[in-house]
Amino acid sequence: MLLNKLLHDGDHEDLAEERRQATFNTDEMAALIWGGKDILHRRREITKKVEEHQELHDPCSQAFMTREEAILDAARKVTKMVSELDELEVNPMDANEMFHLIKLFKSRLINSFFSEVIGISGHPLALHGIMFIPTLQAQCSDEQMHWLEKAVSRQIIGTYAQTELGHGTNLKKLETTATYDAKTQEFVLHSPTRTSMKWWPGNLGKSSNHAVVVACLIIDGKNYGPHNFVVPLRDANSHMPLKGITIGDIGPKMAYNCVDNGFLGFDHFRIPRMNMLMKHVKVSPEGKYIRPPHAKIGYSAMVHVRAHMISTQAMFLAQALTTAIRYSAVRRQGEIAPGKGEVKILEYQTQQHRLLPQLARAYAFIFTGIAVRKHYQAVQKDVAVGNVEGMAELHYITSGLKAVVTHETGQGIEQARMSCGGHGYSKASNMSELYGVAIGGCTYEGENMVMLQQLARYLMKSAEAAVNGKPVGQLVDYLAAPGEKYSTIDREQDKGYTGHIIAFRRAAGIQVMRAYERLRSLRSQGLSEEEAWNANAVELTKAARVHTRQYIARTFYDYVNSVVDVPCQEVLRDLLHLHLNYELLDMSYYLLEDGYLTGHQINHMKEELYRLLSKLRPNAVSLVDAWDFSDRELRSVREFSRFS
Amino acid sequence: MLLNKLLHDGDHEDLAEERRQATFNTDEMAALIWGGKDILHRRREITKKVEEHQELHDPCSQAFMTREEAILDAARKVTKMVSELDELEVNPMDANEMFHLIKLFKSRLINSFFSEVIGISGHPLALHGIMFIPTLQAQCSDEQMHWLEKAVSRQIIGTYAQTELGHGTNLKKLETTATYDAKTQEFVLHSPTRTSMKWWPGNLGKSSNHAVVVACLIIDGKNYGPHNFVVPLRDANSHMPLKGITIGDIGPKMAYNCVDNGFLGFDHFRIPRMNMLMKHVKVSPEGKYIRPPHAKIGYSAMVHVRAHMISTQAMFLAQALTTAIRYSAVRRQGEIAPGKGEVKILEYQTQQHRLLPQLARAYAFIFTGIAVRKHYQAVQKDVAVGNVEGMAELHYITSGLKAVVTHETGQGIEQARMSCGGHGYSKASNMSELYGVAIGGCTYEGENMVMLQQLARYLMKSAEAAVNGKPVGQLVDYLAAPGEKYSTIDREQDKGYTGHIIAFRRAAGIQVMRAYERLRSLRSQGLSEEEAWNANAVELTKAARVHTRQYIARTFYDYVNSVVDVPCQEVLRDLLHLHLNYELLDMSYYLLEDGYLTGHQINHMKEELYRLLSKLRPNAVSLVDAWDFSDRELRSVREFSRFS
Repeated sequence: MLLNKLLHDGDHEDLAEERRQATFNTDEMAALIWGGKDILHRRREITKKVEEHQELHDPCSQAFMTREEAILDAARKVTKMVSELDELEVNPMDANEMFHLIKLFKSRLINSFFSEVIGISGHPLALHGIMFIPTLQAQCSDEQMHWLEKAVSRQIIGTYAQTELGHGTNLKKLETTATYDAKTQEFVLHSPTRTSMKWWPGNLGKSSNHAVVVACLIIDGKNYGPHNFVVPLRDANSHMPLKGITIGDIGPKMAYNCVDNGFLGFDHFRIPRMNMLMKHVKVSPEGKYIRPPHAKIGYSAMVHVRAHMISTQAMFLAQALTTAIRYSAVRRQGEIAPGKGEVKILEYQTQQHRLLPQLARAYAFIFTGIAVRKHYQAVQKDVAVGNVEGMAELHYITSGLKAVVTHETGQGIEQARMSCGGHGYSKASNMSELYGVAIGGCTYEGENMVMLQQLARYLMKSAEAAVNGKPVGQLVDYLAAPGEKYSTIDREQDKGYTGHIIAFRRAAGIQVMRAYERLRSLRSQGLSEEEAWNANAVELTKAARVHTRQYIARTFYDYVNSVVDVPCQEVLRDLLHLHLNYELLDMSYYLLEDGYLTGHQINHMKEELYRLLSKLRPNAVSLVDAWDFSDRELRSVREFSRFS
Repeated sequence: MLLNKLLHDGDHEDLAEERRQATFNTDEMAALIWGGKDILHRRREITKKVEEHQELHDPCSQAFMTREEAILDAARKVTKMVSELDELEVNPMDANEMFHLIKLFKSRLINSFFSEVIGISGHPLALHGIMFIPTLQAQCSDEQMHWLEKAVSRQIIGTYAQTELGHGTNLKKLETTATYDAKTQEFVLHSPTRTSMKWWPGNLGKSSNHAVVVACLIIDGKNYGPHNFVVPLRDANSHMPLKGITIGDIGPKMAYNCVDNGFLGFDHFRIPRMNMLMKHVKVSPEGKYIRPPHAKIGYSAMVHVRAHMISTQAMFLAQALTTAIRYSAVRRQGEIAPGKGEVKILEYQTQQHRLLPQLARAYAFIFTGIAVRKHYQAVQKDVAVGNVEGMAELHYITSGLKAVVTHETGQGIEQARMSCGGHGYSKASNMSELYGVAIGGCTYEGENMVMLQQLARYLMKSAEAAVNGKPVGQLVDYLAAPGEKYSTIDREQDKGYTGHIIAFRRAAGIQVMRAYERLRSLRSQGLSEEEAWNANAVELTKAARVHTRQYIARTFYDYVNSVVDVPCQEVLRDLLHLHLNYELLDMSYYLLEDGYLTGHQINHMKEELYRLLSKLRPNAVSLVDAWDFSDRELRSVREFSRFS
């Protein structure tokens, strides 16, 4: 029986040859990736329906459009998508429900629909769906729900305007002000400096006529810090900026060029009191500030976005690898045995080493994404019954994951791109666009160096607890149990790779404690808390990175061990073992320095790595096939992908 | 006396503050970089003249142009540049000399002129100058010199068409044929398959009306392999493709979009016998093939291009760092001491660690580029008197350098770009364009994995010699003298950092020998020569990389020790020491595994690294100022660069 379900008549013979070698059922694997066979089935229906509906296609590749053409085309398509949703029958949710559009942007299948029609470069309604509506939903008081209704029915189109030219990371220093005028019961929005100009909000440039604006609330000369206000920006009929509003597009970017990121300035622009979002905080008509019942409402949205970023980034990497690995199976260049003909470039060990450890990472990130989303849902349930403890821990986990996964995804896509030689440099492969979009993740939703230090704060607190014999969280239980004295990595009996997992824990433990001790030592030399932190910041980010890589390895390990389908589990175990050897070799510095690993063990891991590259090579194409991307989703010219 | 010569009225105060801290004269340093004060002076004259000549400016930033507009603008500017060269008095060469245009593209000052006017995205005459004319110059027989005259006077515009859709690396398998027809004394050019289509040649798409085409010469059914032919492609008056020629642009790329890379196919297209370039090889009228006197003519051009790539890549990195470090000195975000106000982001250790080791690499690459060009000139002199030995060694050096420098330059630019947060993602910073252009270097002129294996062949031959007690080249003398048994890295008396240099040599020696022994072991297990090589390819590329990093470190070390100006030497020594610690820590895996370095020594290097980050920080802006890039060259909006 042929196990690769993508094998079909008309396949390029070189690809068919690969597909015939699959040792596992690609549909079984795809069901693991996409969350069940029913979802997989619906995904394929979407692909088919989009194929049939020509009005959802691009007239030509976006790479050949001007930016304006590409944005207009995206606007046309997204409007068609939303209005034809029922007809297309692709929304498994109740289409009549009020929060329709929210689910539209959130559900897995809707993501598939967007992936087919829109691709990765964004569209004019992006922020309306992923930021404007959810913010209104979370922060409108009962009497403000009319905003939400208007947004959902798209009578108004909005975005979320927070970042300014001068401040992104340090939100406390945002300069836009909203001064309450009790006489008229209005807030006066103002941009006092050039750096106070809002800068970057998506879809602010041209598409939105409203925004949730973050501004410092001032009442009677007192600054209450950043608060959220619903602000009309443009005339509902003419779409011209309202008086007192300076607004426009900030111009082209590395990628995401179908999103019109914009700037926005206010010149004493007045809005009614009830335009401040008041579900939690209130300002009374006479100007009394009423605090929220408990202060820590914040985390949830950030954690939600970062948890989802893991999966999104994993899919960027997966798409790049699909194109690169299929290309490597049809591109023939050079001979290995002289006179025996040119070989597929996937036969070269260097090519396998470029691609297969990245393939393992993509699988690791996908399963980590699934695990984190599950974790998030569990924490949300706890929060709903008033137990908010888990949210902080999840914040730390997702901060570290966001930084490590975006960084490694970028590296992996570039390796995939370059493994296609010149053809990867051509926009026809779509790989430079994938890189441009994915690498943005290192910067947005919390710059990576800042994210790593967020996690490091938790790690330092835990180290302090461990040193003082106090209990530590499960996340860092390696601090309380520094593991075995000698590694079992090269022992014959360690088929289950537990020695590798222990080594990861050990590496994390070593670097976390090293960073902790250096911090203590710097403080004892007379540096203040903050100076010591800064003088130790590189070691701290390293601790956060090693911890997170350990977390990913462990999550991958646990997931693979839970897989029921035996042939799927077998090939996943090969991928897992490749991952464990590759990552541990890359991090061996920490363990060698400590004397934990011997040269013999390093050598054993290297030989295992090379053995696994060879062993996985025949399944390589089937492992990317199992991601089940359509040619339309990949947006790489067919000659590079399926060769059908 | 103020040592930073860029300090001037109107500087942003945050930058002025940095510039006042310079401990060295930036003009003295700039003279080291640019090859003397006279050249520096002339460079500045060029900047000034270009500033004055508005017809050499872009009407708006290229980022806002469509690709067609950008190409037309580049065509307009390059035509102006060439025709107004004398008037501008920027060419120090004899402008009346016949090879005018060759020098135009080669000399340092002309590069500066291009950097000012054209920037980094290319132009329609690029390949005409850097490939078409030099090829004609090198390969025209005396009676063919009329091609060269026409090219130099731009009566014809040409490119060099080698790469095909199906073959780039393995040139032996090029499929385009040139079959000799003795009856008509013509060659018949033909593209027998789709993959035989020429694909990628720069300026082939729209600009050129001629090309040097690489095709397999066939006489009487016998294939003599690839040879060069001058081929007219388009009508001189209408610019329409000639009959039998299929030609066009291959579309947008990751970068270099002002170069019209093209495709080209032949349908039994006939050219006269004398259109084959015949300086070395000849085909007689009756179809007799006459071999060149000696076979190895090839190396020189490749070596030349790769030697120059080191410097070009170094300058890409330097430009990105100039923007990033100046930005980091004016961007304030977050507080270190609470309540003391927001600090320049350059105060953060993580930011220093992102940028300063890259700054050190940029200096290392610049000085390595200078050393390699000198070496190339010396070898050229030897070749001129018949001594070709040195060329092979230089080929290996430049192969390794090309791979390592392009890879690390790409990494460095991305770190610089991301260190500017969102603003680095905006095209306004020009940093994504720098990345796109620079990273292409990993692929063109020999894919990096192939390049590393070229060097590895030399290293394996040398290891074999060393094992057999035979003499080895100076380049790998560490194989014959495995160095001291214990490292002196943490010894008080090792102020000169000789211990570090020895450790580099040791690391190279360890990995070269490890790769050699594994190769031997694989062969002894029954693998053929070629199979063993492939099964060992990853270890071999690692050996080549470590060797090359050792070479760069040594070259940087030697260069810094030769600098005469004391304050310049002092700051360069700090940079060198930062480089040695940073790189060695990054490569410590090789030395730890071998037990050569102790944990104490690793710790010593870390502390030195952190100490040097702090020590160099006050000179950071002055060190990028010393590269003397004009704002026009940087093409980053002024708010990001000089803030003037």
